[in-house]
This record gives sequence, structure tokens and C-alpha cells, in this order.
Amino acid sequence: MDKENLSVVLHSPGDLRLEHLPVPEPGPNEVLLQMHSVGICGSDVHYWQHGRIGDFEVKKPMVLGHEASGRVLKVGPGVKHLQPGDRVAIEPGVPREMDEFFKAGRYNLSPTIFFCATPPDDGNLCRYYKHSANFCYKLPDSVTFEEGALIEPLSVGIHACRRGGVTLGSTMLICGAGPIGLVCLLVAKAMGASQVVISDLSAERLAMAKELGADFPLEVKRGDAPDELARKVEGLLGSQPHVTIECTGVESSVQAAIYATRPGGVVVLVGLGSEMTTIPLLSAAVKEVDIRGVFRYCNTWPMAIAMLASKRVNVKPLVTHRFPLEQAVQAFETTRQGLGVKVMLKCDKNDQGP
Amino acid sequence: MDKENLSVVLHSPGDLRLEHLPVPEPGPNEVLLQMHSVGICGSDVHYWQHGRIGDFEVKKPMVLGHEASGRVLKVGPGVKHLQPGDRVAIEPGVPREMDEFFKAGRYNLSPTIFFCATPPDDGNLCRYYKHSANFCYKLPDSVTFEEGALIEPLSVGIHACRRGGVTLGSTMLICGAGPIGLVCLLVAKAMGASQVVISDLSAERLAMAKELGADFPLEVKRGDAPDELARKVEGLLGSQPHVTIECTGVESSVQAAIYATRPGGVVVLVGLGSEMTTIPLLSAAVKEVDIRGVFRYCNTWPMAIAMLASKRVNVKPLVTHRFPLEQAVQAFETTRQGLGVKVMLKCDKNDQGP
Amino acid sequence: MDKENLSVVLHSPGDLRLEHLPVPEPGPNEVLLQMHSVGICGSDVHYWQHGRIGDFEVKKPMVLGHEASGRVLKVGPGVKHLQPGDRVAIEPGVPREMDEFFKAGRYNLSPTIFFCATPPDDGNLCRYYKHSANFCYKLPDSVTFEEGALIEPLSVGIHACRRGGVTLGSTMLICGAGPIGLVCLLVAKAMGASQVVISDLSAERLAMAKELGADFPLEVKRGDAPDELARKVEGLLGSQPHVTIECTGVESSVQAAIYATRPGGVVVLVGLGSEMTTIPLLSAAVKEVDIRGVFRYCNTWPMAIAMLASKRVNVKPLVTHRFPLEQAVQAFETTRQGLGVKVMLKCDKNDQGP
Amino acid sequence: MDKENLSVVLHSPGDLRLEHLPVPEPGPNEVLLQMHSVGICGSDVHYWQHGRIGDFEVKKPMVLGHEASGRVLKVGPGVKHLQPGDRVAIEPGVPREMDEFFKAGRYNLSPTIFFCATPPDDGNLCRYYKHSANFCYKLPDSVTFEEGALIEPLSVGIHACRRGGVTLGSTMLICGAGPIGLVCLLVAKAMGASQVVISDLSAERLAMAKELGADFPLEVKRGDAPDELARKVEGLLGSQPHVTIECTGVESSVQAAIYATRPGGVVVLVGLGSEMTTIPLLSAAVKEVDIRGVFRYCNTWPMAIAMLASKRVNVKPLVTHRFPLEQAVQAFETTRQGLGVKVMLKCDKNDQGP
Repeated sequence: MDKENLSVVLHSPGDLRLEHLPVPEPGPNEVLLQMHSVGICGSDVHYWQHGRIGDFEVKKPMVLGHEASGRVLKVGPGVKHLQPGDRVAIEPGVPREMDEFFKAGRYNLSPTIFFCATPPDDGNLCRYYKHSANFCYKLPDSVTFEEGALIEPLSVGIHACRRGGVTLGSTMLICGAGPIGLVCLLVAKAMGASQVVISDLSAERLAMAKELGADFPLEVKRGDAPDELARKVEGLLGSQPHVTIECTGVESSVQAAIYATRPGGVVVLVGLGSEMTTIPLLSAAVKEVDIRGVFRYCNTWPMAIAMLASKRVNVKPLVTHRFPLEQAVQAFETTRQGLGVKVMLKCDKNDQGP
Repeated sequence: MDKENLSVVLHSPGDLRLEHLPVPEPGPNEVLLQMHSVGICGSDVHYWQHGRIGDFEVKKPMVLGHEASGRVLKVGPGVKHLQPGDRVAIEPGVPREMDEFFKAGRYNLSPTIFFCATPPDDGNLCRYYKHSANFCYKLPDSVTFEEGALIEPLSVGIHACRRGGVTLGSTMLICGAGPIGLVCLLVAKAMGASQVVISDLSAERLAMAKELGADFPLEVKRGDAPDELARKVEGLLGSQPHVTIECTGVESSVQAAIYATRPGGVVVLVGLGSEMTTIPLLSAAVKEVDIRGVFRYCNTWPMAIAMLASKRVNVKPLVTHRFPLEQAVQAFETTRQGLGVKVMLKCDKNDQGP
Repeated sequence: MDKENLSVVLHSPGDLRLEHLPVPEPGPNEVLLQMHSVGICGSDVHYWQHGRIGDFEVKKPMVLGHEASGRVLKVGPGVKHLQPGDRVAIEPGVPREMDEFFKAGRYNLSPTIFFCATPPDDGNLCRYYKHSANFCYKLPDSVTFEEGALIEPLSVGIHACRRGGVTLGSTMLICGAGPIGLVCLLVAKAMGASQVVISDLSAERLAMAKELGADFPLEVKRGDAPDELARKVEGLLGSQPHVTIECTGVESSVQAAIYATRPGGVVVLVGLGSEMTTIPLLSAAVKEVDIRGVFRYCNTWPMAIAMLASKRVNVKPLVTHRFPLEQAVQAFETTRQGLGVKVMLKCDKNDQGP
Repeated sequence: MDKENLSVVLHSPGDLRLEHLPVPEPGPNEVLLQMHSVGICGSDVHYWQHGRIGDFEVKKPMVLGHEASGRVLKVGPGVKHLQPGDRVAIEPGVPREMDEFFKAGRYNLSPTIFFCATPPDDGNLCRYYKHSANFCYKLPDSVTFEEGALIEPLSVGIHACRRGGVTLGSTMLICGAGPIGLVCLLVAKAMGASQVVISDLSAERLAMAKELGADFPLEVKRGDAPDELARKVEGLLGSQPHVTIECTGVESSVQAAIYATRPGGVVVLVGLGSEMTTIPLLSAAVKEVDIRGVFRYCNTWPMAIAMLASKRVNVKPLVTHRFPLEQAVQAFETTRQGLGVKVMLKCDKNDQGP
């Protein structure tokens, strides 16, 4: 093990540096990890470019990265279920307090939660990282490190589909075929969704969606009327979808989502737009179409691992680019340009495979 | 029994007439009712004044009234659970088709449902009325006809509280202290809500709310900032409410409802505003505050009768005015002016009591 | 169309006859069907052998059959969504009254429900049959008649998995690998179950289960200790299953189901045993393992058709034997002997294909 | 503050001693409490008499008591929401690990949970006691210490009613009118239950139940036929109850509970009987009557405090006896003899009031 811990540190908007930080020492209920694979998320890029997301502002240097997996090097004295050598996926959110939200099983809503690479909490895009052992999940041999890292975006899809009540025979509209739209698609199909329309501006993204199982790719254009889009969706499915997952955050798309959804159905908001949004609230209300947001996820890692181990979900095609940790800036630039789907950074000098 | 059936008929906006219509003959699964008490609803007045609500337009003369109770005079040959003399409360919505919504227990969403005094379906503000026997519910002796008629607005409160997940210890905000806000308050308390803030522009309405059990009446003014209102609510309760029921339909009030509600909570939309509404959707999404509309109600009469019979809910104070059927126009005018809470029309010449 | 309607009629225990009955005339909301494929169910055989199941006793001649599909020949005047020529799957249970159960979306519990081949209601193992149009569901071209007939047993699996809360990543134990155990397996996998142990006395049945996707076939023997079986299941899965579906009705198997299931999990009772059963109720209670029965199903046909159309579930391998309607007695004898999985009767002389 | 900590210590079956133990020192996230009121539970008496309950065995001296409230004397450095002087109610179960059960909001099922006076964990029937600050809940001034202590049994009622899905208009059967049956009754009424039958062998207990709001006290005798009891219940309510809460653990009572409950309803098992129980499982299954156990409770203190503060529930009549801590043995003897409802021990020498 090195004495130095190469890390990707954001100092201020636009100022991303590769730095050597100390190797941390795990606390009583923590593990020290040799990081292996870390995916780059849109939020990482957003912090890099703008220095903030909503109220979260980068005020001091912060290590980026939160889609991650690694190998246990050292365990704190209170850790029982892990040992050195174990391969683990890392859930980046760790509640700090046993508050009402945690006690009720919705710890993602806990206001004091630690979360990797949400300022001021450091992420795990580095060589060595320590984390709460309770939020590291052992990977079976049949699940690769990269699949382990992809559990993080997959979790967004799981949480969204679960909040939407997706089940056997659900018909669906997914707005947006970026990485999050695609994981929603994969999860929805694994939960039994029968027919899925997925919409996007980009024909290329839709082609990827079709490969991953979308029944009806629907190319849209800026300026399309929301109610007309809704009618197109109904035309494709033969009826209105039970569940719509909105992954763009664009106002007109939220409007189309509400118009499109069947009475008694659900619109799940995954994409984040501007604070104030104008929507056909009356339509939603009198159709009893529920509008439900998602904030990250909770209780998803075990079921995601179970799904990956049983080969019910194939996330491997999502990884379109790989860079060694040393080329992190280039990797970030690739993501910023919207090339491919998921860019993966390889943090272990001795094992750069998937 | 008369040969003539005095009825309150709306011909066109503003043109409300008292007319003699034929006494109807009940079909195989119907009952003929001697109407007793019919409350006037804001929607009745709205049709009278404007001739339409949303897509529902009065194109031919329509009998008004849908908050009603009466006595069975005659039963069709297929009717088993009712007999002449039974006192019943009338559920005004009767599904016409065994469609997917009815089969799934959400018949209020059935697009072909019959609904009293929603054009083109006639209501029951008249002397004699026939209705599906399955949607007439026998009243125990301890429940008055007026309580029976009030089950209709009470049902809106039940459905709203049920959709909001109100339960033991829920803290709540109810926006609006009109008749619907008040029934939501009564139902919420009966379901175990611990503390309820209720807001309104009118000090008089708030006084009534306080009498009916509201913990914190909150007088608001046009122009109050939504986020400031939210802070006031938190101040009164000591924490954010679990459930907010919005009964005004006013944009700024919907905004306050979202800001006020606790993460993981629910905003129920009962008041109907204009089609497009601008709301802090991002706040709702990242707090996972669900936005759920209500469209009328379903499966509420039996539980409402059970509650009234057990004296867990006292709706009697809601009736502030009574008129004989012959004075229907005066009664409508009283409701239009917003006097009192609930105006009741007495349709039985021989029994004008509660 | 014939004037005669060849039908499989049970007169008394053991007395099964092929008879010519009149062709029925559809009522206003009914359709007349040319029957195509009808599967034989264990309950059909049980009525044949014993003349009764529980309180349901064959007291007058009854047409058997309730796993069925056919083609619409004639529609009643009130029927809008079907027309002659449509291929349909038949839901055998049709509620007769809009009672509390129907209104709440659980019409399978309605005590007055009509149900094909449950005495005294006739089934549809015949050439021509009339049925409520609302309980006939149009099949898309891509779904065969036999798949349509198999929706009935599939519905048992859907209802069981839904009652069990099967979802993404669920681990499961299914007790019994007969036709019902197998459809539970297919549905569970389609709903996202990750790992399924399925137990049976017969190696042959387990081999079929493995082909259909079971992860761990577990051969059991009469006399195996229930708690030991539970430990074996935990050993195979690496942890206790979230959901157990008991399809045998055998007392020791119900006991094993309770011991095996994870705290907070669910045991679904599909197999019917004797009235009084001795179970480790204390274990179930202190683990908060819910015990939930299923009675037939409700609201399953649309989702089943969606699943079959989208090719998410493959039920075709379940059909192991086919007989023309004229050889019904031989077909029943085959089922009685427990040969194969599902025996299908072909009722249309001009189309005996799947 | 004393240097000595008078405590009620169970050494072995029958050997209950008053001893002076050291005053504990609170850890970083703990508080030291001056105990005020501690109720005696049936389980305390059972340990005293038998030394064990199920697999839990008293192998070394253990302080008894888990229905408790007290005043904060000292707070650990990590404690933010409490300060010396605060009056608190104590939730006796504190999860030790962030395991799957805790993360999912069902921490009562966590196998490693700490629980007061369940061996080997010490209870709080003493002068000074330290506890996790996160499981101490501040009492408003309007809630007495004794009400605070009674939140523990009240929580059993809350959890049972919640598991049973009690809501507005529920009709109910509660089997057993001991302390737990009575709290279930209080909670059920506060949640909106309309009519409650409560059964017991003792006329005296039923009289208390009637005072607390039971609609139909039903005196039963050993040897009553379960199905006949079920018919009596239906006769009293006019229909079968939606929810039955079984608080006796007696086999014939569990049988009656299943026979009595309405199709689609729920039987909640609160009373614990012997491991193997013979029940009409077939009846439960074909009626889709769910059987759900309860193990202690979770997430109940905040809602219980809200209810007590809002005066929606009055638990004060449950306290029928009070003893100073020094007379603990006499208090235990009173409980053992089944005198009254709840015996309260007063642990604060300077404040022996409620």
C-alpha cells in the first residue's frame, strides 16, 4: 500500500486537481478501501463547472466521486461482516443520526446525512478511501467491480420505479434516454413492465435505449406541444401509461408527463429543473395522477446486488469509456461533452479491468 | 304520493327554475326515493352562475343537487337489501361500466360514471328521484337525514385524508376553512390527527374551525409570501406538518402547502384552481413530498355512516341555513353570498326537520 | 355454426358425460363465444372424483372447465369493446352484485360471484358459451389461444406473488412444483425475484422447474423435519427468503414455510389443506411473518395479457398434452394420473392448433 | 445526586432483590436519567417467576423494568436535542447495528437490538439509568411522567392497530381486556374505529373496557365454541369485524378470531401462546384474512406523545396502583395477583406524583 493517496479534488468552479492526500485511518465501524472503479456522474461535472447545486456549494476543496466500488484493505475493530480482501460496492449516503427519517426507513431524507461528493463531504475518486462498514456491501464473485460501481445510478432507477409502483404489466413512459433514463428502463423491465415508451431529443441515445429493451423509442423536438406528445404516447401504447418517469427536468416534458399518464397513475420526478415550474396541476389532480419526487435512494444496494448476481439486469453496456485515475481530467471532459453513456475511472494501478 | 315532482332545474347560466317533472319509475336494480334533505354545494352554484365547470357544460336543462338523503318509496324487482320505508343516504356517483377502474376499486375515475348534477346527468334536488339501489345506503335510526345528506361533503374529507395518509399523531395544515376545509378537519381529527393548523382569509370562518376542533387557526392575507406562511405553520406546530390538505385552489396557497410540508410528507389537492399552476416542484421533488389530487371519492359511505352512528364525528353544526324546496332560489342566493357554512333544502313537505 | 353444443357435463361423482346442450343466446352485456382451448384444472378433476370441494357440492349436472379462451361469435346490444371475430381470454369469475368487495376492488371475495365450474355455475368446456363481455379480454395477435387459456392458472400466480409483495431482488421459496408452483415461479421471476428455491417430492417436476428458471430445485421426502428444511433453504439462498409461496397445502410444508421465511417476510397460502392445521404460530408472530391466503384472483387478466404480449413470460412449455373436445374423458384421466403439467382440450373442430 | 443507585435486580427465578448499583456514566450519544415512573409489565413478572420467556433466559443478575420515564441529569458530548432538566419518555429498544431491518424502518426485528429487561440487557427500574439519547423523547409540559411511562404499553397498541390497518369506520373485535387489550381499544378508537367488541372471561375487566369506550363488552367462558363466539360478534356488530386483535394467546381465542373476521380483513396476533397452535387455516386462506403478528413496536413514541399532548387518548385511568421504588417487591406481588390494571413504581424520592 502506498503512503500517498492520489485523489481528484475540486478546489473551485473549473479548478479540478489531481492531488496526493494522506491515506485515511478507518474508525471503529469503518473500513479502509482500495478503490477500484468510480463512475462519473452528471452532478460531479456540474460541481466542477458551477461549484454548486442548489443550496450545496463547494466552499473548500472536495474530493469528487460517488459511484464506486473497491476492495477492503483494513477493518475497524467493530466490523463483523467484512474482512480484508472483500470486494464491495459503496453506498455513498450514510446517515449520521438516528432521526425520525432513519428510524422510519427513509434515511435518504435525513437532513444530516453524509453523502460522498456533496459539499462539504468528500467523495471517493481516489486510491484509498474509508467508509462506514454498514454501507459497504460485499459483491459476489459473479459481479464485477464496474457493475458494483454502477449500483449507484442503478439505485436511482430502483428508487424511481419503486416510488412509481412499477409492477408486472405496467406500461410506461420514460422521458429522457440519458444514463438515468436508461437505468430506469432496465429496472422497469426487470420489475415486469410490459411496454415502455422512451423519449429523447437524440436519435443516438434512443438507439441505445432500444438495444437495452425499450419498446418504443420516441424522438422529440424542442417546441413539441406537451399534449400532442401525450397523444403520441397513447397511440404507441394503445392506452395511457400507468407510470411516467420524468428524467429531464425540462418544464414542457413535465407537462407532457402529466398529460400522458393514465388516471390513477403516477408521475415520478427524477430530473431536476428550476425551482418554479408551471404544470397542468388541475389535470393531475382530477385524474388523481400522483406526482412523486425522488431524492437519491435508500435500501437499494442489497436488491441491486441480488439482481446483478442473478443476471436479471445487464448494466455492462452502459460503460462506454474507461480512463486510469491519472487521466481524470480527460475523463471529466469526456463526460462534459456528453460522449457515450458512462465514463469509468480505474483507481487500482494493479487492476484496471472491469 | 304526488303525480307531480317539483324539481330545481337549471336551463342555462343564471336561469334556475322550479318545475314539475314526471315521477320516475325505478328500473330492476333501482329504488324510487322521496327526497328529504339536499345540501347546496359550491359546484351547484357554479353551474348556476357559469353553466360549466371545466369540460362539463350544461347544454340542456338539468336538475341540480347531489348532497342528498331520502326515504325509499318503491324498489325494483332485483333489489334485496332495501325496502320501502328505509331511510337512505345517496352516493351520487354510479359507475356505468365494469371497467378497469371499477374493477380495481377506484370507480370514481371511471370515465363513463353517472354523477348527479354533473351535466348531462340530472341531480336529486326534487321531490321524487330514482337511483341505483347499490349506491343507496341505509341510515341507522340514530343518524338524521341531514347527517345523511352531509355524507357527501364528508366523503370529500374522507377521501382527501385517506389519500393523504392521515393517521394517529399526524400533524397537519389545512388551507381554507370553507365547508370542505371544515369536513377535512373533522375527518382528520377522527382519524387521529394530533395538531391541525387551518388557514383562511376570514376570521369568522376560522372561529368556526376553532369550534370544530382546529388547534391553530391562522389568518392569512392576500399577498402573504408562501415561504413565510410555511415558516409560520412550522412555528405553530413546532415542526413541519406531515400532511397538508389544500382546499382553496389558489396558486400561492399551493406554493405555501409545498413549502410547509415535512420531507416525506404529502400535499393533497382538493381545491381546484386554474389549469396551469406555477409551483416549487423542485422543492417538492427533493423533499419527496408527494402531490396527490382527489377526484370526488369512492368507498366512503359505509365508513361515514359508521362514524356518524358511533358519534365520532359531529357534522350537525355545519348546517347553518334551511329552506323548503319551494324556496330553492333564495337558498341558492344565500350560498352564492357565502353566508354560513351549509344551506340545506328540505324536499319533503311532511317532514321539514333535520 | 352448429345447432348443437357439445359439452363436458358432470352429473355426479365419477359420472362425466359428453352431451349436446343448446347453444346459448347472449344477453345485453354478454358475448357468445366459439370456445377454442380449455385447460383442465385440478379442481375439475376433484369435482369429477368427489363431487365437492369444501362447501361447494355438485347437486345437479354442471358443465366443467374454467381455463379458457375462444372467439367472439355474437355480441349483445350493450357491448362496445368487442366484436364478432375477436379472440378473447375468459375470466371465469363475474361478480353479480356491486357489493362492498367489488366496490373496493376485491371482487374475488364477493360471496355472490358467478364462477365457471364452481357449482351450481356452469363452466365453459363446450363448443359454444356465453359470458359477460366485461370479463372477456381481447387477445393481441401475438398471443395464442392456449396462452389465453393459461392466463387463468397464471392469474393464480400473479395474485399470489402480488399478495406476497414479490419485487425486484426478492428471494423466495416456492413449496410444490406442480402447475401452480410453476406459474408462481414464472410470475415471480417476471416481477424481479432474484433467487428462487422450489421444493417437491418429484425429481421430474423439479427438472421442469429448473428449465423454467428455478435457481435451486430442492427434492424433499415425506417425513422431512420442517425446521431442517427451513435450514436447507437458508443454506441454498445464503439467507432466509423474503417471500414463501406454499402450493401444497400439506401441514408439514406450511410449517416449513413459516420456519424458513425471513423476519418481516410473508408466507402466501395457495395450496389448500384440511380445515384445521397445526402451525408454529408463535414463530410467525414474533418474526412478524405475515400469513396471507389467496382466493382465486382479481384484476389479473390485463396485466397477464400485457406480459404475454411482451414475451416477458413464456407459459407455452406448460402445455404437455392436447386432446380434441370429443376425447375429454381421456384428457381428464390423463390429468388425474398426474401426467405432464397441463392438459389442453381443443374445442374448435376447425382449429385444433395452439 | 446520590452515589448509590437503588435498583430492582432479578438474580434467578423468584429471587428479586433491591440492590445498590453504581450510578452509570453516559457515553457520547447517551443521557443519564433520574428515573421517575416505571410501570410493571407482565413480562417482568414472568421473568421473576420463571426466569425465561422463550429463548430469552436470565443467566446473570438483571435489572427489571422497561415502561419508563425520567428526567435528564447529564448528556453525552454528542447529544444535541436534549439537555439536563428535560423530562423524557424512554423507548426501551435501541438497535445496535444499522442492519437491513433498521435501514428499512423495522428496527424492532433487528436480531441484535438492545432491549431493557430482556436478558441479558438491564432494564430501568432503578434510580439512575443511562440510555441512548436518540431513544429518549422529550415530553411536553402537558404530559405527565406516568403518561410518559405508559407510552410503552400504548406503543404495543399503536403497532398492533397499525399492523391491522385500523382506520376511520373500522369495526373491530379485541380478544382480551387486560392492559394490552385496553390500550388496543384506546388506540383503535383514536384511529377512528367505529364499533369495538371486546371479549374477556372477567366481568370486572369488561366493565373497565366499557368505561374506556368499548361498544360491546362480551363475556366469554372457557369452553365456548370458537365459531359460536364468531357468530355472537357478528350479531353484536351487525356484520363481521374488519380487524380482530387477539391479545390472549389462547388457542380457542385465535380460532374464534379467524372465524369472526370479515373476508379481506386482518387478524393481529398480540397475545403469545404456545409454539404450535391449531387454527382454521383454510378458512383464513379462502377468506383472504391476513394473519399478522407483532413483535414489540417501532416508530411509535413521537405519535404517542402527539396523541397524549393533544388529549386524544386518555391513558391515566390505566394506573390503578402506585408504590415507591423501595416497595418494589410488594408492587410485583400486586401485579402477579392480577389486581387492577397497571402498577406504577415511583423512582424519584423527591417527586412521587404522577
